[in-house]
Amino acid sequence: MTFRDKLREASLRNNSLLCVGLDPDPARLPEHLGTGPAAVVAFNRAIIDATRDIASAYKPNLGFYVGYGAAGIEALVETRRMIPDDIPVLLDAKVGDIALTARGYARGYFDEWDFDAVTAHPYLGEDSLEPFLSYRERCTFILVKTSNPGSGDLQDLPVREQGDEPLYRRVARRVARWQETYGSCGIVVGATYPSELAKVRAICPDLPLLVPGIGAQEGDLEATVRAGLGSDPSLVLINASRAIIYAGDGLDFADAARGAAIDLRDRINAVRAAIRA
Amino acid sequence: MTFRDKLREASLRNNSLLCVGLDPDPARLPEHLGTGPAAVVAFNRAIIDATRDIASAYKPNLGFYVGYGAAGIEALVETRRMIPDDIPVLLDAKVGDIALTARGYARGYFDEWDFDAVTAHPYLGEDSLEPFLSYRERCTFILVKTSNPGSGDLQDLPVREQGDEPLYRRVARRVARWQETYGSCGIVVGATYPSELAKVRAICPDLPLLVPGIGAQEGDLEATVRAGLGSDPSLVLINASRAIIYAGDGLDFADAARGAAIDLRDRINAVRAAIRA
Repeated sequence: MTFRDKLREASLRNNSLLCVGLDPDPARLPEHLGTGPAAVVAFNRAIIDATRDIASAYKPNLGFYVGYGAAGIEALVETRRMIPDDIPVLLDAKVGDIALTARGYARGYFDEWDFDAVTAHPYLGEDSLEPFLSYRERCTFILVKTSNPGSGDLQDLPVREQGDEPLYRRVARRVARWQETYGSCGIVVGATYPSELAKVRAICPDLPLLVPGIGAQEGDLEATVRAGLGSDPSLVLINASRAIIYAGDGLDFADAARGAAIDLRDRINAVRAAIRA
Repeated sequence: MTFRDKLREASLRNNSLLCVGLDPDPARLPEHLGTGPAAVVAFNRAIIDATRDIASAYKPNLGFYVGYGAAGIEALVETRRMIPDDIPVLLDAKVGDIALTARGYARGYFDEWDFDAVTAHPYLGEDSLEPFLSYRERCTFILVKTSNPGSGDLQDLPVREQGDEPLYRRVARRVARWQETYGSCGIVVGATYPSELAKVRAICPDLPLLVPGIGAQEGDLEATVRAGLGSDPSLVLINASRAIIYAGDGLDFADAARGAAIDLRDRINAVRAAIRA
């Protein structure tokens, strides 16, 4: 089954565009779980059990596991195994290296660790992405416009070539072209830039879209959903991490996470309903 | 001791600008070592023992370890521990994520795993690099112009802003400015693009420079050394991986690697001598 089909089914089954980010910050794990990689596994297990009928995808970010050393990587691999087979799992690893090395990453993240999708940097160009994109059943989400305050440093630089436009839009055009070759592209645009998102969606209407920055980063939910829905509305992932997984910090943290996940899923769906109406 | 000082000392002690890339490809390890993470550790140990008086630095690339699963990460951490304290070790992880996540990576790669330097993508801008750059004793090598064939896809796009120039040069200017703030920047420019390297060096004359692409990627050694030497000639790392570590594949692979390392170090030094003459 392709990533697109798996995501579509999960999205329809749970009536959800919500992607839950599994980003275990050592400073924010509930105290009663302790610390270290074992606490990470216990935390993730509880979050997954509490949200598996609410989320359309999960997205662990590699950076939060690296911080625990090699045992953190074991915790990441175990986390991936805990997630039900019918929910896609994106590894947010923001890969980007020359082809030979990219093949090592692809073999690791797709074959060994069995993730359904990864995130990737565009800076090295097509040949660096080909080892990922050639896994046509998986999906490679390419960073177009990121959610952070400094994303404009490079991404908004004006490119002079067949008419002026900012770099991130030129990247979106590259991705649209790569999609014609591989069929396994996705795009990442931060919720903190909804008008840029609308412009990217006009270039790539049918690509799976990952939107981080809704929860703690305070992107505008309504503007994001309006701008982000493409030709297949189930291929949108609105990601929230901290706003869900740290909704509570007591013994009932998983219930609190479930509540926050339901609330966000429903708010997204309310915008979708308003758009349809 | 700062990274710059550590690199300078190692470079002067071994009279070398050679960085040895520790990239254990499972298809190319000597047969008698077997396969898997234990073979990787044995292989790296032999390569390090055979080259520690020749190399000015080592650079394992994370992608080659990820391909072995979580046990590969253990092998990476063990590899780092095997390298003598007075030789700097760069983790080629090509990081690039929003600040909160970048802090996780920085804690992992610098504090937990104790690398002296990392490589990083510029695409997310200054705030994404700050968590690395704020480790002022370490070094963050920022990708400016990469060695791969498709590096021009984005890096050569013409940027219109205060005069036209390709994106990679605009990135070099950003790095030069960040260096004024943090003092811990380095740059990466591939040996396959020596004329671009000369232009970057004109913008960043005093930054530590990492140059991949000399061995198997067939960059021009003489042009690279001529273009790459900056205001402090010991702050240049000419990286070779496959051309050294796979120089032989029999029982004597480490001797073959030593021979290849000496040969490349001496060829680099011959160019330096010719420039001084």
